Parts: sequence; C-alpha cells; structure tokens
Amino acid sequence: MTLDDLPTPCLVLDRGILQRNLDTMARALARHKVPLRPHLKTAKSIDVARMAITGQTGAITVSTLAEAEYFVGYRIHDILYAAGITPQKLERVVNLNRHGANVIVITDDRDMAAIIAAQNMPPRCLIEVDTGENRGGISAEGPELMDLAGRLGPALAGVMTHAGHSYSGRSVAEMAAIAETERAGITLAAGRLRAAGYKISIVSMGSSPTALHATHLDGVTEVRAGVYMFGDLFQVQILTHGLDDIAVTVLTSVIGRRPRESSILVDAGGLALSKDRSTAATPNDYGFGLALNLQGQFRYGHAIVDRAYQEHGVIMCDPAHPIDLPIGGKLRIAPNHTCMTVAAHDRYHVVDGSDDVIAIWPRVNGW
Amino acid sequence: MTLDDLPTPCLVLDRGILQRNLDTMARALARHKVPLRPHLKTAKSIDVARMAITGQTGAITVSTLAEAEYFVGYRIHDILYAAGITPQKLERVVNLNRHGANVIVITDDRDMAAIIAAQNMPPRCLIEVDTGENRGGISAEGPELMDLAGRLGPALAGVMTHAGHSYSGRSVAEMAAIAETERAGITLAAGRLRAAGYKISIVSMGSSPTALHATHLDGVTEVRAGVYMFGDLFQVQILTHGLDDIAVTVLTSVIGRRPRESSILVDAGGLALSKDRSTAATPNDYGFGLALNLQGQFRYGHAIVDRAYQEHGVIMCDPAHPIDLPIGGKLRIAPNHTCMTVAAHDRYHVVDGSDDVIAIWPRVNGW
Repeated sequence: MTLDDLPTPCLVLDRGILQRNLDTMARALARHKVPLRPHLKTAKSIDVARMAITGQTGAITVSTLAEAEYFVGYRIHDILYAAGITPQKLERVVNLNRHGANVIVITDDRDMAAIIAAQNMPPRCLIEVDTGENRGGISAEGPELMDLAGRLGPALAGVMTHAGHSYSGRSVAEMAAIAETERAGITLAAGRLRAAGYKISIVSMGSSPTALHATHLDGVTEVRAGVYMFGDLFQVQILTHGLDDIAVTVLTSVIGRRPRESSILVDAGGLALSKDRSTAATPNDYGFGLALNLQGQFRYGHAIVDRAYQEHGVIMCDPAHPIDLPIGGKLRIAPNHTCMTVAAHDRYHVVDGSDDVIAIWPRVNGW
Repeated sequence: MTLDDLPTPCLVLDRGILQRNLDTMARALARHKVPLRPHLKTAKSIDVARMAITGQTGAITVSTLAEAEYFVGYRIHDILYAAGITPQKLERVVNLNRHGANVIVITDDRDMAAIIAAQNMPPRCLIEVDTGENRGGISAEGPELMDLAGRLGPALAGVMTHAGHSYSGRSVAEMAAIAETERAGITLAAGRLRAAGYKISIVSMGSSPTALHATHLDGVTEVRAGVYMFGDLFQVQILTHGLDDIAVTVLTSVIGRRPRESSILVDAGGLALSKDRSTAATPNDYGFGLALNLQGQFRYGHAIVDRAYQEHGVIMCDPAHPIDLPIGGKLRIAPNHTCMTVAAHDRYHVVDGSDDVIAIWPRVNGW
C-alpha cells in the first residue's frame, strides 16, 4: 500500500523523522545526565511510546486517564498523570495502582491533598509548582508548599513544574533563560521540602523548548517533553525544529480548483487540521497549515491553508510554485500545532522516507 | 446515572432544547412549503438524525463518506454528500449505491463530471454553484454551467449552493438578503439548465442562517442546514439562537482554584472544546467558551474560558458571580462553534431539562 491508496484526510507519520527527533532530545538530555519521562499526550500511541522510552527509564507522562489505562494495558507502569487530580479521577488511579500500575498524581490544592492522603492505598503524589506559566501550581517560595506537604504526608513523592511559557520564547537564549527559571524554581521547592525532612525522590520539570535548550539541569531528576517527537510549524517558528523535522502531516486530496484565483480546495478542513492558529503570532503565519507535496517535501513555496471550514480547506497557492494537481490528486499539510491536529484522527499511517505505508499505528483519543 | 457521575470532560446534549431547535427550523421552512434535508455533519448521530427527519422527506445531507456509510447502515438511503467528489471517493459512493443507497454527489469540475458520467452506474450528481461564499462552485451565469451539464449527461439531477457567507451576517435583514441572493442564484442556474432541456429535479440551497431568515424560497426544492440543531455561542451572536437554545455543552470538572486571581482551572481544554475562536469577531468574545452551572444555566455571568491548553482550560470568573466549587466540582461550558467541539467526542450524554442522564448516543467521527 502506498500513500496514494489511502482515503483522505488521514495522518502520515514518518518514522525516520520521528527517530531523529527522539535522538535529538535524547542527546540534549544526555549532556545533563538527566533521564526523559516522555509525554505521550501528543502521540497517544504504544508504538511511539516504545520508541520514545528506549534508552530512558521506561517511565512516561500522560495527560488523560484514558492514556494511563491504555499504556498500563501494554505494561507501561511508571506513569505520571500531569494534570490536577480530582476525587473522581483518583478512584480510577487507585484502581489502576491496585492492579500493579504506579500512576503518580499531581495536586496544588490543600483539600485535594488531604483526600489523597486519606486513601487506603494513596498513589504517589507530586506537588505542582508554578515557575512562571501561571496556569497550575503554587509558588516555590510561599507557605503553601509546606502546608501541602504536611497534608500529603507519606504520599508526597516529589515536586513538578511545567514552564509552558517557554513557547512564547523566540530565541535560544530566551528559552535557555526560561529553562533556568524552571530549574531554579523546582529545585528550590525540592530543597525547602528536604530541609524540612521530607523525602523528595522526584524533581520533575519540562517542556520541549526548555528540555532542548537548558544550559544545565542540576538537581532535576527527570525531564518531561512531548511535542518534540513530531514537531510542527509552530515549533519551527520557535527554533526547536526545522521544516524537515516535522514527522506528522495530514494527507489530503484536491476537491476543487480555481486556477484564476491561484487557489485549490482540499478535503482537510478544520476537523482534520484543527482550528489552531498558533503561528499567527510568529514571524511566519501559516494559516491553518503549509502545503507539501505527496512526498512531504517543501515544493509548493508559501502555499498555506488560508481558510478552514469543517471539511474544506482553501489553499492559497504561491504564484511562483503553482500546485498543478487534478481532482483527487494528493498532497500533505504540515500542521501548526501537532497535538491538536493528530487528536482528530484515530491512527497513523507510517512511512519511512518513501510513499510506502509500512504500518498503521492506532491512537487512544478521548478521556 | 446523573451528570455528577460522569467522567469529564464529556458532551451533554439536552433533548428538549434539541427538539425545540428542530421545531423552530421546521416551522420556518413550513412557511415556504419547502422540505428540509437536514445536514448531519454536526450531530453525526442516528438518534439525532431520526428526530431531525421526522416530518420531512427522510433525506439527509452529510459531510463525509464515513457519515454516509454509517447512515446507510441505519437504512437512511437518500443522502447528499455535500463536498466535492473525487475519483477515489466515487468508488465508495458507487459501492453504497450498488447495495441500495441513493448517495448523491456534487461537483464543479469538468474532468470530474466526465469521470462521474463514465461510471457503469453513475450516482445522481448536482452541479455546485457559488452564490457568494467563494469556496466551491461555479457561477450561475457563466458558460461552465452548460459545459458541466453536457459532460454529466443523464447523471445530472440538479443544482446546489451553500451561502456560507451568511455566517458573517449580523442582522436578520442582512441574512434575509443573503438568503435571497442564494435563492436567486440557484434558481437562475436551474432555470438555465431547464431552458436547455435538462431535467432538474433537485434545487438545493441552505445554511442555518439563510434557512431561518429567508423571506421566500420560490423555486427551491429543498433546504439544507445543520448547526441549527445544537446552536452555539456564535449562533447566539448572529441572532439565530438565544443562549437558552444551546443544546450541547461540555461537562467539565474543576482541577485547580486561584481565588486571588478570580480564576479556576478545568479539565476541558483545547481538545475538549476545540481551538475555534469564532466569537472573537462578534460583539461578545467568549474566549473558548462560556461557563454555565451544572444544570446548564447562565448563573456565572461573563465567566469565559480565557485560555485553552491541550487538557486545561482557564476560566476567568465574573467578579459579580464567583464560581465557588471544590476540586472535582462540575460545571458546563457552552461552545463557540458546536461542530468543532462535538467532533472531539465519541458520544452524547443525553439529558432532558434535569441532571438525569436518560441515554447515551454515539457519534460517527473520522472519514
């Protein structure tokens, strides 16, 4: 089977590019001698997970309990569920752990900490620390840290943070500076807890930009990152990937042609691509995605999906590089934000540098 | 089972509101004595389809072949696939029709018209006409219409158009004017073809705003509309729905609290809500959605999802109406654009004016 045989729209994953991205991240962290706990929120695939944990400790991060349950089914047991736990979700975690898993939860809430500690078999819990993203987490410096630790008691296993604001960095220097803020904040929290007598075995930080660009990671026990595996146009704009490092694209077919307007209509619209417009705030605005040829090569110039309807995408062609395809002709779209784009699809069609589809890898969507 | 028992995030569909929206559209079209061919691209559910075709002809519209195959499986046979057909997709349509379905296709391309006509058992085909949306379709006035008709030959069954630009209307008068442009264009095309001797049995137009606000529909044989079933915040802004007419909401749980910043963190982020920002261009910008209480009531004032990460939504509360819920407390989010939001979910949890979940209705996603 080749790409030309596939019904569209669908996802194409280039295994060679994925492997290169995994190697780049592994090298970046090996410099600091810190292992990676890859975040599977983007890939949501056991096949990708197996590649990503190779050479690491075997631990992973997830963003949903559906992912946790799926990966436990494949005997990946050391799992950090990196979104604030609730009482109802705690029941699912306790159930997984009762059957041999080691799902670690996070909290930044004093009531929730008490509920975790009150379990018969409490999961290990990390305190979420805010190092500048201003989303979840408490201050590394304030009194809440000790209050939470006291409430968690023996369930306390460590601290974690996510410097998600690194995605607003636009230079390596900026991202390195944010990485150092992230590192300094989380190790400060760990140090305060240790000084108070708590055993802190996990000091976890990470985002793809800070993981790649940190200058040192002293005191950190693990790094989390996810989107680095696949890359996307936004990552290209913030200098963590090149255009050739985008591993996942959307295969699409021409369904209309307007040569007088230099536009074509394709069957990848807002559902197949997502409505994410993150490149709007970057030097190159790619609309809803960049058109590549069937082989995934940059041959159409600045041909972008200018408008995205539910099942229609309007590509405005680059006059210097017209797209001359018949109805049904296929091309590929590089996504703005791969996490959002892949979530609309239930599988990857895997290639390795050619048109041949060498495997189909399912994804676990939903919650 | 009540809403409080459901894992979050998930979809809630209020059957009573859905029925009211269906009745409103049925009444609007009954004035013109034109039947509705409901568009199931939003709902993608046989249970909703059965309600939507009640009192109509039984015909439906779909946006994907996955929908067509799904509905044929439930013996709905008269289906308009309202996106430009390709040779590869034509094979799937012919296969469905060989087994008793009557899937109608559309094209605006002369090469594709010839391919359709060359089938052993060509499906019925409509010529797509552009009445101002500037997406797909040919002019109602130009020479391409006759060229396409000649190429389609006996496969030609009619003409269709979609005045999608009606969504940029901001008053009933504007939408009525766009509806009249849509009607005039498609009946002009039908008239030209009939004058040339073609049998034109289907003259199809529609979008939710033009279907609701048309002043007359003379010469039109059917109207298509979809989003009217569920409504959303964007529809409220363009005056086709009230806030109480939004039938689908996302149930979510509090996963973090920052009372000093008047914000809460919920487990409905960009995946559960979509990244659609269509209300950004309307009088009321609702961010990524509007917070309602567990009963779906407007009780939290202008509390909107201000930021949407993959699995985290940050709700900025209205200081006059604080949201005082514990971790795990539940609320509902009204979506900007329901078509995008529901597509992230595989089922509806159906209620009818209370917290009781009276049914679970599956959806058919993908392609």
